[in-house]
Amino acid sequence: MSFEITILGSSSATPIYQRHPTAQVINIHERFFLMDCGEGTLIQLNRYRIKFHRINHIFISHLHGDHYLGLLGLISTMHLQGRTTELHIYSAPELREIVEIQLKYSETNLRYPINWHFTDPKRPGTVYEDDLLVVECFPLNHRIPCTGFLFREKQRPRKLIRERLAEYQVPVSAYPILKAGQDFVTETGSIIPNRELTLDPQRARSYAFCSDTIYDPRLTDTVRGVDLLYHEATFLSDLEDRARETFHSTAGQAAAIARDAQVKRLIIGHFSARYKNLYPLLEEAKAVYASTTLAMEGDRFSIE
Amino acid sequence: MSFEITILGSSSATPIYQRHPTAQVINIHERFFLMDCGEGTLIQLNRYRIKFHRINHIFISHLHGDHYLGLLGLISTMHLQGRTTELHIYSAPELREIVEIQLKYSETNLRYPINWHFTDPKRPGTVYEDDLLVVECFPLNHRIPCTGFLFREKQRPRKLIRERLAEYQVPVSAYPILKAGQDFVTETGSIIPNRELTLDPQRARSYAFCSDTIYDPRLTDTVRGVDLLYHEATFLSDLEDRARETFHSTAGQAAAIARDAQVKRLIIGHFSARYKNLYPLLEEAKAVYASTTLAMEGDRFSIE
Repeated sequence: MSFEITILGSSSATPIYQRHPTAQVINIHERFFLMDCGEGTLIQLNRYRIKFHRINHIFISHLHGDHYLGLLGLISTMHLQGRTTELHIYSAPELREIVEIQLKYSETNLRYPINWHFTDPKRPGTVYEDDLLVVECFPLNHRIPCTGFLFREKQRPRKLIRERLAEYQVPVSAYPILKAGQDFVTETGSIIPNRELTLDPQRARSYAFCSDTIYDPRLTDTVRGVDLLYHEATFLSDLEDRARETFHSTAGQAAAIARDAQVKRLIIGHFSARYKNLYPLLEEAKAVYASTTLAMEGDRFSIE
Repeated sequence: MSFEITILGSSSATPIYQRHPTAQVINIHERFFLMDCGEGTLIQLNRYRIKFHRINHIFISHLHGDHYLGLLGLISTMHLQGRTTELHIYSAPELREIVEIQLKYSETNLRYPINWHFTDPKRPGTVYEDDLLVVECFPLNHRIPCTGFLFREKQRPRKLIRERLAEYQVPVSAYPILKAGQDFVTETGSIIPNRELTLDPQRARSYAFCSDTIYDPRLTDTVRGVDLLYHEATFLSDLEDRARETFHSTAGQAAAIARDAQVKRLIIGHFSARYKNLYPLLEEAKAVYASTTLAMEGDRFSIE
């Protein structure tokens, strides 16, 4: 079952060296979620051969242009290509106004509905849930209201061992309690331990996305123990003052969050245009937290 | 003295095959004008090594996204890169609302002023003039209000032939009338023909831009005799009905305008995403008007 993040862009506000602004596609069990949508996202989706019509949910962290300016082009192209399926957008409420004014002046009547889900940048909450997955939002500490997102698989039930069930003559009616982890009590009152009858399910996986934020240790609790953490790393630590002034983080600070939250793996991105060579950012982060990777366009990160 | 158009994008609404939507840079005597600004224009400017800070005038033909969605990213990046020089934008008035709402929600106070010049989509007019150049706008016939632009060098004065002036003892006070093309009358009343004393000036060059329009023979008079005409050619003629329904033109129709207006050269663009191979569009146009070229990204068209 796939749980894979594809990086479409990881530049900060100024796109240079052919680096595009923030956008990622998250594929969980062949359900496709778009995380931020910087200018050029549609071209990047084409480049990496991701079918944009499969995207039904778009999450926008905040209203700085490098995180949403590709949205109108994507919405319009979905319309021109005949989409009729509802599109869900999770964002600050002001984005709806920005989108609707542009649809109005271009005299575009979308062939499909947009279902808006507004995030509250001040408090965490659940923004999406299906049978396999929950997406939570949480506040980030940036210059304007900004929201992070946490994708968590739901814990799957324990796996029944069919041969053992037959052996112990377990009735079908008892299956749900076994899947839930309880022991089985026979008609004669003897106890068969759950671990005799079931196997551990596949582990529930998780991905946290922290787009733009000042170094904020409170994030540690929010993203504790996730399999994969994306955290912005706009600057090297010699520009820590500049990072603080602009409500951004250094590579070392991103790694400190990853280390303190004991995440399994960190990817850093949102690189300032001043860095043509990104290797020093990687080195700085790895010195703090070894399991760090650069978010490069076209990279795919699978959680097994 | 340069008069050169660089194509940054010539795709219609859906960008595919790495083709970008409409944007062009017009360099006239090292003054840089941006014509339309589809999504990705900033990246394209970088790719073709055109310094965006040299652009002081931006013309937007209409408010379909493929003609302006790159504007916010460009405006923001100019701001982040420290621009203080005034920026002039020529467009429908509604674009100002679209830009300002996005600056408001991103809490961006631009370090430079934007000077808005609103075009009237219903009637022609002069929108820009300097010592060398006039830019006129004119109505195009599209689904929403749409404006074409015509760049004309001013006619330069006739060039004085210094040796002849000395020979005929022409006083300096007579130079202006000679430059204007009049004959010189000596003190004794004899007439020295102007052509004895002056040479033809460099020819005034012209470029007309017709972004999105249904086939409209009235355009012929507007663009008559220009050196270079860009005319959209969204479809092949087997889709002439579709072109009419969507207020676009076929390649053959674009060429008919060029032929009837006796322009020197035609470039066609705004190709539908359905055409991976653009050669048939070129062939169709050339059958009507031989001096036709495809507008391909990175192409530069110089008028000598």
